[in-house]
Amino acid sequence: MRKAIFACVSLLSMAIPVLAGPTPVAPNGIALYPDYMSWRVVAPSYREDKGHIRVITGNETAVAALRAGVKPLPDGSVLAKVAWKAVKHPSFPVATEAGEFVQVEFMVKDAKKYKETGGWGFARFVGKDLKPYGKDASFVNECFGCHTPVAGNDYLFTRMAGTP
Amino acid sequence: MRKAIFACVSLLSMAIPVLAGPTPVAPNGIALYPDYMSWRVVAPSYREDKGHIRVITGNETAVAALRAGVKPLPDGSVLAKVAWKAVKHPSFPVATEAGEFVQVEFMVKDAKKYKETGGWGFARFVGKDLKPYGKDASFVNECFGCHTPVAGNDYLFTRMAGTP
Repeated sequence: MRKAIFACVSLLSMAIPVLAGPTPVAPNGIALYPDYMSWRVVAPSYREDKGHIRVITGNETAVAALRAGVKPLPDGSVLAKVAWKAVKHPSFPVATEAGEFVQVEFMVKDAKKYKETGGWGFARFVGKDLKPYGKDASFVNECFGCHTPVAGNDYLFTRMAGTP
Repeated sequence: MRKAIFACVSLLSMAIPVLAGPTPVAPNGIALYPDYMSWRVVAPSYREDKGHIRVITGNETAVAALRAGVKPLPDGSVLAKVAWKAVKHPSFPVATEAGEFVQVEFMVKDAKKYKETGGWGFARFVGKDLKPYGKDASFVNECFGCHTPVAGNDYLFTRMAGTP
């Protein structure tokens, strides 16, 4: 069953590719996961200060663990946080919707490899060119610093949005 | 390929069921689609007036058409709008996240069956009991009335959130 699921996820990812051209790579070696928009929803979020509206998605490993309430998340878990400019709906201005794509950020769990940053590898790809963020691998200190207040939640701000 | 994709979607849906108990049915006969949280992301949205944060997902037919820019959406397209109470993140109050589940709404395309409401069947399931909205089938007039200003966009407020 597990094999079948992974095979299916691969097939579905192939069916609707989201990236053309070479895959961008962050300065710490993490390459963009091109199928992040094919992953399951973890939660929406809205950043008032930045004017961003976002969706967090997760790969099969991450979503299965989050649904089961497993913390810390197991190795192989990957979460994507996709941000768009928050814009007022032209026909219905009390609704805020996704405008221009801003960036996608990834958190990749490998307890051994990323031991010094809570078991998480971080990466951010910015703008329509998906430009890797950071001049060198030290950019992760910025990411990790921001996530430190949520160390007690496996360094995750995001929780699984619940449904009945 | 198409068959394989549908088989995969069914398998993935089975893998992580989101509903326990009998499937609720709206007064117009539309039953809740239990795998709506396994569908792909169409877009996030935020309703300032209601204090709701939302994710719109779509089944394979709907997402393929939206990505390809096909309008009106073909028969068999189903969109789900999932709403949660918008709450401030306890550790990071400039971020608004999903609190308690509010409701899930569906739009189901069948140009012939739902000819009188723009080719769309509507349904809403409210609260943790997923209680079908509406006393009788006339509840759709309320839904359709609200969607009339976006008749030129196949009665859809939501657009596909773009990624590079």
